[in-house]
Amino acid sequence: MTQAAMTPDSIAACLAALRERRPLVHNLTNAVVANFTANALLALGAAPAMVESPEEVPAFSAAADAVVVNLGMLTAARAGVMRQAVTAAAGARKPWVLDPVGAGAIPARTAFALELCRRRPTAIRGNASEILGLVGEAGGGRGVDTGAASDAAIAAARSLAVMTGAIVAVTGAVDYIVDGRRSVALRNGDRTMTSVTGMGCAASAIVGACLAVADDGLLGVAHALAITGIAGEMAAGVARGPGSLLVAYLDALAAPDPVLLRAEMTFDDGGQASGHHRSGDT
Amino acid sequence: MTQAAMTPDSIAACLAALRERRPLVHNLTNAVVANFTANALLALGAAPAMVESPEEVPAFSAAADAVVVNLGMLTAARAGVMRQAVTAAAGARKPWVLDPVGAGAIPARTAFALELCRRRPTAIRGNASEILGLVGEAGGGRGVDTGAASDAAIAAARSLAVMTGAIVAVTGAVDYIVDGRRSVALRNGDRTMTSVTGMGCAASAIVGACLAVADDGLLGVAHALAITGIAGEMAAGVARGPGSLLVAYLDALAAPDPVLLRAEMTFDDGGQASGHHRSGDT
Amino acid sequence: MTQAAMTPDSIAACLAALRERRPLVHNLTNAVVANFTANALLALGAAPAMVESPEEVPAFSAAADAVVVNLGMLTAARAGVMRQAVTAAAGARKPWVLDPVGAGAIPARTAFALELCRRRPTAIRGNASEILGLVGEAGGGRGVDTGAASDAAIAAARSLAVMTGAIVAVTGAVDYIVDGRRSVALRNGDRTMTSVTGMGCAASAIVGACLAVADDGLLGVAHALAITGIAGEMAAGVARGPGSLLVAYLDALAAPDPVLLRAEMTFDDGGQASGHHRSGDT
Repeated sequence: MTQAAMTPDSIAACLAALRERRPLVHNLTNAVVANFTANALLALGAAPAMVESPEEVPAFSAAADAVVVNLGMLTAARAGVMRQAVTAAAGARKPWVLDPVGAGAIPARTAFALELCRRRPTAIRGNASEILGLVGEAGGGRGVDTGAASDAAIAAARSLAVMTGAIVAVTGAVDYIVDGRRSVALRNGDRTMTSVTGMGCAASAIVGACLAVADDGLLGVAHALAITGIAGEMAAGVARGPGSLLVAYLDALAAPDPVLLRAEMTFDDGGQASGHHRSGDT
Repeated sequence: MTQAAMTPDSIAACLAALRERRPLVHNLTNAVVANFTANALLALGAAPAMVESPEEVPAFSAAADAVVVNLGMLTAARAGVMRQAVTAAAGARKPWVLDPVGAGAIPARTAFALELCRRRPTAIRGNASEILGLVGEAGGGRGVDTGAASDAAIAAARSLAVMTGAIVAVTGAVDYIVDGRRSVALRNGDRTMTSVTGMGCAASAIVGACLAVADDGLLGVAHALAITGIAGEMAAGVARGPGSLLVAYLDALAAPDPVLLRAEMTFDDGGQASGHHRSGDT
Repeated sequence: MTQAAMTPDSIAACLAALRERRPLVHNLTNAVVANFTANALLALGAAPAMVESPEEVPAFSAAADAVVVNLGMLTAARAGVMRQAVTAAAGARKPWVLDPVGAGAIPARTAFALELCRRRPTAIRGNASEILGLVGEAGGGRGVDTGAASDAAIAAARSLAVMTGAIVAVTGAVDYIVDGRRSVALRNGDRTMTSVTGMGCAASAIVGACLAVADDGLLGVAHALAITGIAGEMAAGVARGPGSLLVAYLDALAAPDPVLLRAEMTFDDGGQASGHHRSGDT
């Protein structure tokens, strides 16, 4: 098997495709992160929209290039609209992403997240507690925070990928992206990113944008998380605290430039080939 | 006919009136832009409020100095409240502004925007696709973005002004403000402003604030768009990307100062008089 | 009576406890300030959550370390959820905070705020118009702004504290914190903080966080307002306008450091002891 690996060049190509095709990403999300999510997508070069009425959603989701469903601040009304949106996306063969905010920690969230998992999302992105919660394991989550390191959820991510057919990403100090067969590990990002609300939610939205322009879904998700992680590193390099970090993060996402030559990643395609890329200032 | 023209002095006078009278602007808007809209109004010197319950809205809208209705993320519940708000504003002879987000691209939005157009808004501000959509022409809009240049919508804006009695502004690389008889063209602003969500929505809110202190509605709208455009230019001059642009934009709106000596505008009052003002660093 | 006074050391100890224990603060709040509130709590070292569905709220509020109820953009649905949240918090003996946004100026808000006052909040934080409104006095509020100086509401705050058993804080140029017996006056903060939306709302959320780690409720509220006021001063020292003020404010809240050596405060425990601390750069 020959496998297109993620490289700095492939990340740059993904960014170029985003800016060329400007995918319309339909986000079903919440009031805490809606503005930051829209700004992150705009900064990256995608086109965000947050349509949420039952009258408007089916046609809008079907016409969008990707749909992203974020369970933060879930209500029964929004759950109903999310069902419409993912049905429409699936019917139109558009990628859709599940961000299971609070799964594992809030029982109603876990139940609804599992319902959506059965509807075959293209990708699922969560923190370790959320991914562990979806496979029925205790992850120590409290509220919307994780109580576990991403490493602790690798096996859960793989199980979830096998069960749902989705690409599953568990993000944390290391980001792991798996499908039923392959995996990518990314060590980008900065610890201080957890001091800004919505960083994970924005990453899920960017996963949607990258899936809209990706030929290979696993690599699309990996590109998205490499981009967000590297943007976070760039931002952390200039920030004086969480306020300036969020500003610098949006600036970094819009950097015209291969940003991306610093990606540190391990690519593992199931034993058939593997590579470790380390590119940097050297 | 003698016609008060827009000049750097008239813009400065508008800003001074805003800061003196601090108009209360009641915004019916959405979760993506609510925070940015409130901060833009505060930065400018106006008083924002976002009351949205059916019990509270009629009295609140009537007591406010201006009402701004933004159709982003429209829901049936919010549409009902918007009807109350504009009825109350009209009854109290307060100016109200329609921002027809997504009209032309989303059928339910177009229909509701047209319903509100029939209720005689004081002003309508949209991008080219939205204004074209309101007169039944295809504008190439997708989601909430425009697919057309503002020049393409001048005739549509004039038709809409004649049909509704509103002052109509179509914003873009050039902003056109028309009523049934006069027009103003403004070349302020910066292309990078489209990389921050809610810039148009904030402009509509600022239109509301300026109408609250304006004697001449057309000039009030023009002053608002000159202020937002020049603030955007000032911000673009110091920003390193969309994150720092939004921060610098709020800073610029609050600049105590005639900001505004750089306005580049063409004023056309229907052939009876016309002027081209070019003031700058010279 | 010996009374633990607020000192720079006690403020630093409060901050250290926040960062050590990372209290989960459940905010029932509105779309204008939700993002800023979450970011302020994260910057400070607390864990924010904004769960708002009737199915999820009772268990979540009971499990949180503090609950903060903010009446901005009140709707009937949100009022119902707020009743659940404060009932759950009280049942679990968790502190809860009322921020009566718009009370006094909007009749339905006043009525609901008074209903919540009868449910025995741990603390109430408002501006002068809101606190005056809760005791039936005219405070000149319009929209969500105050029309009165905080000094004008000291007696009202004390009455409200006696009537409700709550610690009552009225914030403004001087912040007054009272219970039925003691009072603290704080002169921290900066006038420009009123140019950023949600500063008061974030302060109320920080009050919740500090109450979650406080032994003495009055001092917990005072610590919270000292922290917000000093962070505002630090931010004002570097800001060029309201945009950079909000960024610098979040940075200041996260400053690892006793920030807090500049607190200027008067502590009055009802005549039994009193002190005036003035510490500074000296």
